Amino acid sequence: MAPKEPVVRLQRRGLLFVLSSPSGAGKTTISKQLLQEPDIKMSVSVTTRAARKQEVDGVDYTFVDEATFARMVKDGDLLEHANVFGHHYGTPRRPVEEMLAGGQDVLFDIDWQGTQQLKQTARDSVVSVFLLPPSIRELERRLRSRAQDSEEIVQRRMQGAQEEIRHWAEYDYVLVNDDLDRTMGDVLSILRAERLRRERRVGLYDYVSTLRTS
Amino acid sequence: MAPKEPVVRLQRRGLLFVLSSPSGAGKTTISKQLLQEPDIKMSVSVTTRAARKQEVDGVDYTFVDEATFARMVKDGDLLEHANVFGHHYGTPRRPVEEMLAGGQDVLFDIDWQGTQQLKQTARDSVVSVFLLPPSIRELERRLRSRAQDSEEIVQRRMQGAQEEIRHWAEYDYVLVNDDLDRTMGDVLSILRAERLRRERRVGLYDYVSTLRTS
Repeated sequence: MAPKEPVVRLQRRGLLFVLSSPSGAGKTTISKQLLQEPDIKMSVSVTTRAARKQEVDGVDYTFVDEATFARMVKDGDLLEHANVFGHHYGTPRRPVEEMLAGGQDVLFDIDWQGTQQLKQTARDSVVSVFLLPPSIRELERRLRSRAQDSEEIVQRRMQGAQEEIRHWAEYDYVLVNDDLDRTMGDVLSILRAERLRRERRVGLYDYVSTLRTS
Repeated sequence: MAPKEPVVRLQRRGLLFVLSSPSGAGKTTISKQLLQEPDIKMSVSVTTRAARKQEVDGVDYTFVDEATFARMVKDGDLLEHANVFGHHYGTPRRPVEEMLAGGQDVLFDIDWQGTQQLKQTARDSVVSVFLLPPSIRELERRLRSRAQDSEEIVQRRMQGAQEEIRHWAEYDYVLVNDDLDRTMGDVLSILRAERLRRERRVGLYDYVSTLRTS
Protein backbone atom coordinates (compact mmCIF):
# COMPACT_ATOMS: atom_id res chain seq x y z
CA MET A 1 0.00 0.00 0.00
CA ALA A 2 2.90 2.40 0.64
CA PRO A 3 3.49 4.53 -2.46
CA LYS A 4 6.94 4.65 -4.09
CA GLU A 5 9.10 7.64 -3.33
CA PRO A 6 8.54 10.30 -5.96
CA VAL A 7 11.42 11.40 -8.19
CA VAL A 8 10.06 14.94 -8.06
CA ARG A 9 9.67 15.78 -4.38
CA LEU A 10 7.20 18.59 -3.81
CA GLN A 11 6.97 20.63 -0.65
CA ARG A 12 3.58 20.25 1.01
CA ARG A 13 1.65 21.52 4.00
CA GLY A 14 0.88 18.92 6.64
CA LEU A 15 -2.70 18.07 7.54
CA LEU A 16 -4.61 17.29 10.71
CA PHE A 17 -6.09 13.83 10.30
CA VAL A 18 -8.97 13.36 12.72
CA LEU A 19 -10.34 9.91 13.45
CA SER A 20 -13.48 9.82 15.57
CA SER A 21 -15.87 7.02 16.45
CA PRO A 22 -17.91 5.68 19.30
CA SER A 23 -15.70 3.44 21.42
CA GLY A 24 -15.94 -0.09 20.12
CA ALA A 25 -15.93 0.86 16.42
CA GLY A 26 -12.27 0.01 15.85
CA LYS A 27 -10.65 3.43 16.11
CA THR A 28 -7.71 2.34 18.25
CA THR A 29 -6.74 -0.50 15.93
CA ILE A 30 -6.96 1.74 12.85
CA SER A 31 -4.96 4.50 14.56
CA LYS A 32 -2.13 2.14 15.46
CA GLN A 33 -1.80 0.88 11.90
CA LEU A 34 -2.01 4.40 10.48
CA LEU A 35 0.96 5.41 12.62
CA GLN A 36 3.08 2.82 10.77
CA GLU A 37 2.88 5.11 7.72
CA PRO A 38 5.66 7.63 7.10
CA ASP A 39 5.20 11.34 7.89
CA ILE A 40 2.29 10.99 10.31
CA LYS A 41 2.49 11.09 14.09
CA MET A 42 0.00 11.06 16.90
CA SER A 43 -0.89 14.23 18.70
CA VAL A 44 -0.18 13.70 22.40
CA SER A 45 -3.02 15.16 24.47
CA VAL A 46 -2.78 16.67 27.91
CA THR A 47 -5.30 15.38 30.44
CA THR A 48 -6.28 15.89 34.05
CA ARG A 49 -7.32 12.27 34.53
CA ALA A 50 -5.03 9.86 36.40
CA ALA A 51 -2.65 7.68 34.40
CA ARG A 52 -3.83 4.10 33.89
CA LYS A 53 -1.50 1.15 34.33
CA GLN A 54 1.03 0.99 31.49
CA GLU A 55 0.31 4.52 30.30
CA VAL A 56 3.49 6.56 29.91
CA ASP A 57 3.53 10.27 30.70
CA GLY A 58 4.43 12.27 27.58
CA VAL A 59 3.76 9.30 25.27
CA ASP A 60 0.15 8.22 25.78
CA TYR A 61 -0.84 11.50 27.42
CA THR A 62 0.83 14.35 29.22
CA PHE A 63 -0.72 14.20 32.67
CA VAL A 64 -1.32 17.60 34.28
CA ASP A 65 -3.23 18.93 37.28
CA GLU A 66 -6.38 21.07 37.05
CA ALA A 67 -4.53 24.36 37.65
CA THR A 68 -2.03 23.69 34.86
CA PHE A 69 -4.81 22.71 32.47
CA ALA A 70 -6.81 25.85 33.29
CA ARG A 71 -3.74 28.01 32.66
CA MET A 72 -3.13 26.35 29.27
CA VAL A 73 -6.75 27.07 28.24
CA LYS A 74 -6.45 30.69 29.42
CA ASP A 75 -3.16 31.25 27.59
CA GLY A 76 -4.49 29.83 24.31
CA ASP A 77 -1.96 26.99 24.42
CA LEU A 78 -4.57 24.38 23.40
CA LEU A 79 -5.91 23.81 19.88
CA GLU A 80 -8.98 22.10 21.33
CA HIS A 81 -10.08 20.84 24.70
CA ALA A 82 -13.01 18.87 26.03
CA ASN A 83 -14.52 17.49 29.19
CA VAL A 84 -15.24 13.76 28.96
CA PHE A 85 -16.80 11.99 31.94
CA GLY A 86 -15.52 14.74 34.27
CA HIS A 87 -11.92 14.80 33.03
CA HIS A 88 -10.28 17.45 30.88
CA TYR A 89 -8.45 16.61 27.66
CA GLY A 90 -6.69 19.00 25.30
CA THR A 91 -4.22 19.30 22.41
CA PRO A 92 -1.16 21.53 22.90
CA ARG A 93 -0.81 23.93 19.98
CA ARG A 94 2.97 24.28 19.63
CA PRO A 95 4.06 20.71 18.66
CA VAL A 96 1.24 20.49 16.11
CA GLU A 97 2.22 23.74 14.42
CA GLU A 98 5.84 22.62 14.25
CA MET A 99 4.89 19.33 12.56
CA LEU A 100 2.61 20.97 9.99
CA ALA A 101 5.29 23.50 9.05
CA GLY A 102 7.69 20.61 8.47
CA GLY A 103 5.27 18.89 6.07
CA GLN A 104 4.30 16.24 8.62
CA ASP A 105 0.73 15.11 9.33
CA VAL A 106 -0.75 14.86 12.79
CA LEU A 107 -3.23 12.16 13.78
CA PHE A 108 -5.98 13.07 16.24
CA ASP A 109 -7.95 10.51 18.16
CA ILE A 110 -10.61 12.91 19.49
CA ASP A 111 -14.38 13.07 19.84
CA TRP A 112 -16.92 15.30 18.09
CA GLN A 113 -16.39 18.17 20.53
CA GLY A 114 -12.65 18.28 19.86
CA THR A 115 -13.23 17.96 16.11
CA GLN A 116 -15.56 20.96 16.08
CA GLN A 117 -13.01 23.10 17.91
CA LEU A 118 -10.14 21.93 15.72
CA LYS A 119 -12.12 22.92 12.62
CA GLN A 120 -12.64 26.38 14.09
CA THR A 121 -8.92 26.97 14.59
CA ALA A 122 -7.50 25.12 11.56
CA ARG A 123 -10.35 24.59 9.09
CA ASP A 124 -8.53 23.96 5.79
CA SER A 125 -5.92 21.69 7.32
CA VAL A 126 -8.42 19.31 8.94
CA VAL A 127 -9.41 16.02 7.30
CA SER A 128 -12.00 14.28 9.43
CA VAL A 129 -13.03 10.63 9.32
CA PHE A 130 -15.83 9.04 11.31
CA LEU A 131 -16.01 5.29 11.89
CA LEU A 132 -19.38 3.65 12.40
CA PRO A 133 -19.87 0.15 13.83
CA PRO A 134 -21.44 -2.45 11.50
CA SER A 135 -24.50 -2.75 13.76
CA ILE A 136 -25.80 -1.69 17.14
CA ARG A 137 -25.61 -5.32 18.30
CA GLU A 138 -21.95 -5.61 17.25
CA LEU A 139 -21.17 -2.33 19.00
CA GLU A 140 -22.65 -3.63 22.26
CA ARG A 141 -20.83 -6.94 21.85
CA ARG A 142 -17.51 -5.12 21.44
CA LEU A 143 -18.17 -2.85 24.42
CA ARG A 144 -19.06 -5.84 26.60
CA SER A 145 -16.03 -7.88 25.57
CA ARG A 146 -13.79 -5.67 27.67
CA ALA A 147 -14.29 -8.04 30.57
CA GLN A 148 -13.04 -5.79 33.33
CA ASP A 149 -15.85 -3.25 32.94
CA SER A 150 -18.96 -3.18 35.10
CA GLU A 151 -22.50 -3.14 33.65
CA GLU A 152 -22.76 0.50 34.69
CA ILE A 153 -19.66 1.41 32.68
CA VAL A 154 -20.93 -0.58 29.67
CA GLN A 155 -24.24 1.30 29.81
CA ARG A 156 -22.45 4.63 30.12
CA ARG A 157 -20.27 3.71 27.14
CA MET A 158 -23.35 2.77 25.10
CA GLN A 159 -24.88 6.17 25.89
CA GLY A 160 -21.61 7.87 25.02
CA ALA A 161 -21.52 5.93 21.75
CA GLN A 162 -25.05 7.09 20.89
CA GLU A 163 -24.08 10.69 21.60
CA GLU A 164 -20.98 10.38 19.41
CA ILE A 165 -22.90 8.74 16.53
CA ARG A 166 -25.32 11.69 16.50
CA HIS A 167 -22.48 13.80 15.07
CA TRP A 168 -21.50 11.60 12.10
CA ALA A 169 -22.71 14.16 9.53
CA GLU A 170 -20.12 16.74 10.64
CA TYR A 171 -17.27 14.65 9.18
CA ASP A 172 -15.66 14.72 5.72
CA TYR A 173 -15.63 10.93 5.38
CA VAL A 174 -17.86 8.38 7.08
CA LEU A 175 -16.86 4.71 7.02
CA VAL A 176 -18.73 1.64 8.20
CA ASN A 177 -16.14 -0.60 9.85
CA ASP A 178 -17.63 -3.96 8.87
CA ASP A 179 -14.25 -5.34 7.73
CA LEU A 180 -11.03 -4.17 9.36
CA ASP A 181 -8.77 -4.73 6.31
CA ARG A 182 -11.07 -2.85 3.98
CA THR A 183 -11.58 -0.02 6.43
CA MET A 184 -7.82 0.23 6.88
CA GLY A 185 -7.43 0.41 3.09
CA ASP A 186 -10.12 3.09 2.96
CA VAL A 187 -8.36 5.18 5.61
CA LEU A 188 -4.98 4.84 3.87
CA SER A 189 -6.54 5.88 0.56
CA ILE A 190 -8.08 8.93 2.20
CA LEU A 191 -4.71 9.92 3.70
CA ARG A 192 -2.88 9.38 0.39
CA ALA A 193 -5.50 11.29 -1.61
CA GLU A 194 -5.75 14.21 0.80
CA ARG A 195 -1.97 14.62 0.73
CA LEU A 196 -2.26 15.07 -3.04
CA ARG A 197 -4.82 17.88 -2.95
CA ARG A 198 -3.56 20.81 -4.95
CA GLU A 199 -3.90 23.42 -2.21
CA ARG A 200 -1.64 21.39 0.12
CA ARG A 201 1.15 20.90 -2.43
CA VAL A 202 2.69 24.33 -2.09
CA GLY A 203 5.77 23.19 -4.03
CA LEU A 204 3.72 22.99 -7.24
CA TYR A 205 4.15 26.68 -8.02
CA ASP A 206 7.94 26.39 -8.25
CA TYR A 207 7.69 23.05 -10.02
CA VAL A 208 5.30 24.21 -12.73
CA SER A 209 7.53 27.20 -13.46
CA THR A 210 10.22 24.74 -14.59
CA LEU A 211 7.82 23.42 -17.25
CA ARG A 212 7.37 26.78 -18.97
CA THR A 213 9.13 27.31 -22.29
CA SER A 214 8.38 31.02 -22.50
CA MET B 1 -5.62 -2.28 -4.76
CA ALA B 2 -9.29 -3.24 -5.23
CA PRO B 3 -11.12 -2.99 -1.92
CA LYS B 4 -13.12 -5.90 -0.55
CA GLU B 5 -16.85 -5.82 -1.05
CA PRO B 6 -18.48 -4.22 1.97
CA VAL B 7 -20.91 -6.20 4.09
CA VAL B 8 -22.98 -3.06 4.56
CA ARG B 9 -23.67 -1.71 1.08
CA LEU B 10 -24.54 1.97 1.11
CA GLN B 11 -26.28 3.78 -1.70
CA ARG B 12 -24.10 6.52 -3.15
CA ARG B 13 -24.20 9.24 -5.77
CA GLY B 14 -21.86 8.73 -8.71
CA LEU B 15 -19.13 11.24 -9.45
CA LEU B 16 -17.60 12.78 -12.55
CA PHE B 17 -13.92 11.91 -12.54
CA VAL B 18 -12.00 14.32 -14.76
CA LEU B 19 -8.48 13.53 -15.89
CA SER B 20 -6.71 16.32 -17.76
CA SER B 21 -3.12 16.75 -18.86
CA PRO B 22 -1.05 18.03 -21.72
CA SER B 23 -0.70 15.28 -24.33
CA GLY B 24 2.37 13.25 -23.50
CA ALA B 25 1.88 13.25 -19.73
CA GLY B 26 0.45 9.74 -19.55
CA LYS B 27 -3.28 10.43 -19.42
CA THR B 28 -4.30 7.75 -21.93
CA THR B 29 -2.41 4.99 -20.10
CA ILE B 30 -3.86 6.01 -16.72
CA SER B 31 -7.39 6.26 -18.16
CA LYS B 32 -7.23 2.74 -19.61
CA GLN B 33 -6.15 1.24 -16.29
CA LEU B 34 -8.74 3.23 -14.38
CA LEU B 35 -11.48 1.74 -16.55
CA GLN B 36 -10.52 -1.74 -15.26
CA GLU B 37 -12.00 -0.70 -11.90
CA PRO B 38 -15.62 -1.57 -11.13
CA ASP B 39 -18.37 1.06 -11.34
CA ILE B 40 -16.55 3.54 -13.57
CA LYS B 41 -17.05 3.99 -17.30
CA MET B 42 -15.72 6.38 -19.90
CA SER B 43 -17.88 9.19 -21.15
CA VAL B 44 -18.11 8.86 -24.93
CA SER B 45 -17.73 12.29 -26.54
CA VAL B 46 -19.32 13.46 -29.75
CA THR B 47 -16.95 15.12 -32.22
CA THR B 48 -17.03 16.72 -35.65
CA ARG B 49 -13.53 15.55 -36.53
CA ALA B 50 -13.03 12.61 -38.89
CA ALA B 51 -12.54 9.15 -37.39
CA ARG B 52 -8.91 8.00 -37.28
CA LYS B 53 -7.94 4.49 -38.31
CA GLN B 54 -9.12 1.90 -35.75
CA GLU B 55 -11.46 4.36 -34.01
CA VAL B 56 -14.95 2.89 -33.62
CA ASP B 57 -18.02 5.12 -33.89
CA GLY B 58 -19.97 5.08 -30.61
CA VAL B 59 -17.04 3.58 -28.69
CA ASP B 60 -14.08 5.95 -29.03
CA TYR B 61 -16.25 8.86 -30.12
CA THR B 62 -19.64 9.40 -31.64
CA PHE B 63 -18.84 11.09 -34.96
CA VAL B 64 -21.33 13.75 -36.03
CA ASP B 65 -21.48 16.50 -38.66
CA GLU B 66 -21.34 20.23 -37.89
CA ALA B 67 -25.12 20.72 -38.17
CA THR B 68 -25.86 17.92 -35.73
CA PHE B 69 -23.29 19.24 -33.26
CA ALA B 70 -24.69 22.78 -33.47
CA ARG B 71 -28.20 21.47 -32.80
CA MET B 72 -27.00 19.50 -29.73
CA VAL B 73 -25.39 22.67 -28.33
CA LYS B 74 -28.56 24.70 -28.99
CA ASP B 75 -30.84 22.09 -27.39
CA GLY B 76 -28.68 21.88 -24.24
CA ASP B 77 -27.90 18.22 -24.96
CA LEU B 78 -24.21 18.67 -24.09
CA LEU B 79 -22.72 18.91 -20.58
CA GLU B 80 -19.63 20.61 -22.01
CA HIS B 81 -18.19 21.26 -25.43
CA ALA B 82 -14.98 22.69 -26.80
CA ASN B 83 -13.19 23.56 -29.99
CA VAL B 84 -9.74 21.97 -30.23
CA PHE B 85 -7.59 22.66 -33.29
CA GLY B 86 -10.68 23.54 -35.32
CA HIS B 87 -12.76 20.50 -34.36
CA HIS B 88 -15.74 20.38 -31.98
CA TYR B 89 -15.93 17.97 -29.06
CA GLY B 90 -18.74 17.57 -26.54
CA THR B 91 -20.24 15.34 -23.85
CA PRO B 92 -23.87 14.22 -24.25
CA ARG B 93 -25.81 14.89 -21.05
CA ARG B 94 -28.30 12.01 -20.95
CA PRO B 95 -26.00 8.93 -20.57
CA VAL B 96 -23.98 10.70 -17.87
CA GLU B 97 -27.06 11.55 -15.82
CA GLU B 98 -28.29 7.96 -16.09
CA MET B 99 -24.97 6.60 -14.82
CA LEU B 100 -24.76 8.99 -11.86
CA ALA B 101 -28.30 8.16 -10.80
CA GLY B 102 -27.35 4.47 -10.81
CA GLY B 103 -24.38 5.09 -8.49
CA GLN B 104 -21.84 4.71 -11.31
CA ASP B 105 -18.89 7.03 -11.89
CA VAL B 106 -18.07 8.57 -15.24
CA LEU B 107 -14.49 9.15 -16.41
CA PHE B 108 -13.79 12.25 -18.50
CA ASP B 109 -10.71 12.65 -20.63
CA ILE B 110 -11.17 16.36 -21.39
CA ASP B 111 -9.10 19.54 -21.45
CA TRP B 112 -9.25 22.62 -19.21
CA GLN B 113 -12.06 24.20 -21.25
CA GLY B 114 -14.29 21.16 -20.84
CA THR B 115 -13.44 20.89 -17.16
CA GLN B 116 -14.47 24.49 -16.50
CA GLN B 117 -17.83 23.93 -18.20
CA LEU B 118 -18.42 20.65 -16.42
CA LYS B 119 -17.82 22.35 -13.07
CA GLN B 120 -20.40 24.98 -13.98
CA THR B 121 -23.10 22.39 -14.66
CA ALA B 122 -22.23 19.75 -12.05
CA ARG B 123 -19.93 21.38 -9.47
CA ASP B 124 -20.28 19.09 -6.45
CA SER B 125 -20.11 15.91 -8.48
CA VAL B 126 -16.84 16.76 -10.23
CA VAL B 127 -13.50 15.41 -9.01
CA SER B 128 -10.72 16.83 -11.17
CA VAL B 129 -7.17 15.52 -11.51
CA PHE B 130 -4.39 17.15 -13.49
CA LEU B 131 -1.31 15.20 -14.59
CA LEU B 132 1.97 17.05 -15.09
CA PRO B 133 4.96 15.64 -16.97
CA PRO B 134 8.14 15.05 -14.94
CA SER B 135 10.04 17.68 -16.98
CA ILE B 136 9.71 19.82 -20.06
CA ARG B 137 12.43 17.74 -21.74
CA GLU B 138 10.58 14.49 -21.02
CA LEU B 139 7.35 16.00 -22.34
CA GLU B 140 9.02 16.94 -25.63
CA ARG B 141 10.64 13.50 -25.85
CA ARG B 142 7.24 11.80 -25.42
CA LEU B 143 5.60 14.08 -27.97
CA ARG B 144 8.39 13.37 -30.49
CA SER B 145 8.31 9.62 -29.99
CA ARG B 146 5.06 9.41 -31.93
CA ALA B 147 7.06 8.84 -35.10
CA GLN B 148 4.30 9.56 -37.58
CA ASP B 149 3.96 13.24 -36.63
CA SER B 150 5.60 16.10 -38.54
CA GLU B 151 7.74 18.75 -36.82
CA GLU B 152 4.89 21.24 -37.29
CA ILE B 153 2.48 18.98 -35.44
CA VAL B 154 5.03 18.38 -32.65
CA GLN B 155 5.48 22.15 -32.24
CA ARG B 156 1.73 22.69 -32.22
CA ARG B 157 1.37 19.96 -29.58
CA MET B 158 4.09 21.60 -27.47
CA GLN B 159 2.22 24.89 -27.63
CA GLY B 160 -1.03 23.14 -26.77
CA ALA B 161 0.72 21.46 -23.83
CA GLN B 162 1.92 24.83 -22.55
CA GLU B 163 -1.59 26.24 -22.80
CA GLU B 164 -3.01 23.24 -20.93
CA ILE B 165 -0.36 23.40 -18.18
CA ARG B 166 -1.26 27.05 -17.54
CA HIS B 167 -4.57 25.78 -16.03
CA TRP B 168 -3.16 23.28 -13.50
CA ALA B 169 -4.29 25.37 -10.52
CA GLU B 170 -7.99 24.94 -11.42
CA TYR B 171 -7.89 21.24 -10.48
CA ASP B 172 -8.64 19.48 -7.18
CA TYR B 173 -5.58 17.22 -7.38
CA VAL B 174 -2.34 17.79 -9.27
CA LEU B 175 0.02 14.85 -9.81
CA VAL B 176 3.51 14.76 -11.28
CA ASN B 177 3.66 11.62 -13.41
CA ASP B 178 7.30 10.72 -12.82
CA ASP B 179 6.49 7.07 -12.15
CA LEU B 180 3.55 5.38 -13.81
CA ASP B 181 2.89 2.80 -11.05
CA ARG B 182 2.90 5.39 -8.32
CA THR B 183 0.74 7.80 -10.29
CA MET B 184 -1.71 4.97 -10.98
CA GLY B 185 -1.81 4.22 -7.25
CA ASP B 186 -2.37 7.90 -6.54
CA VAL B 187 -5.28 8.08 -8.99
CA LEU B 188 -6.88 4.92 -7.57
CA SER B 189 -6.55 6.29 -4.03
CA ILE B 190 -8.22 9.53 -5.10
CA LEU B 191 -11.11 7.61 -6.68
CA ARG B 192 -11.50 5.34 -3.64
CA ALA B 193 -11.36 8.26 -1.19
CA GLU B 194 -13.74 10.49 -3.13
CA ARG B 195 -16.29 7.68 -3.27
CA LEU B 196 -16.20 7.63 0.54
CA ARG B 197 -16.94 11.34 1.03
CA ARG B 198 -19.90 11.72 3.33
CA GLU B 199 -21.99 13.90 1.01
CA ARG B 200 -21.86 11.24 -1.74
CA ARG B 201 -22.93 8.36 0.52
CA VAL B 202 -26.62 9.14 0.55
CA GLY B 203 -27.38 5.73 2.08
CA LEU B 204 -25.77 6.81 5.38
CA TYR B 205 -28.95 8.48 6.62
CA ASP B 206 -30.91 5.22 6.54
CA TYR B 207 -27.95 3.26 7.83
CA VAL B 208 -27.27 5.46 10.86
CA SER B 209 -30.93 5.28 11.84
CA THR B 210 -30.46 1.52 12.40
CA LEU B 211 -27.79 2.31 15.02
CA ARG B 212 -30.08 4.37 17.24
CA THR B 213 -31.31 2.82 20.44
CA SER B 214 -33.78 5.59 21.26
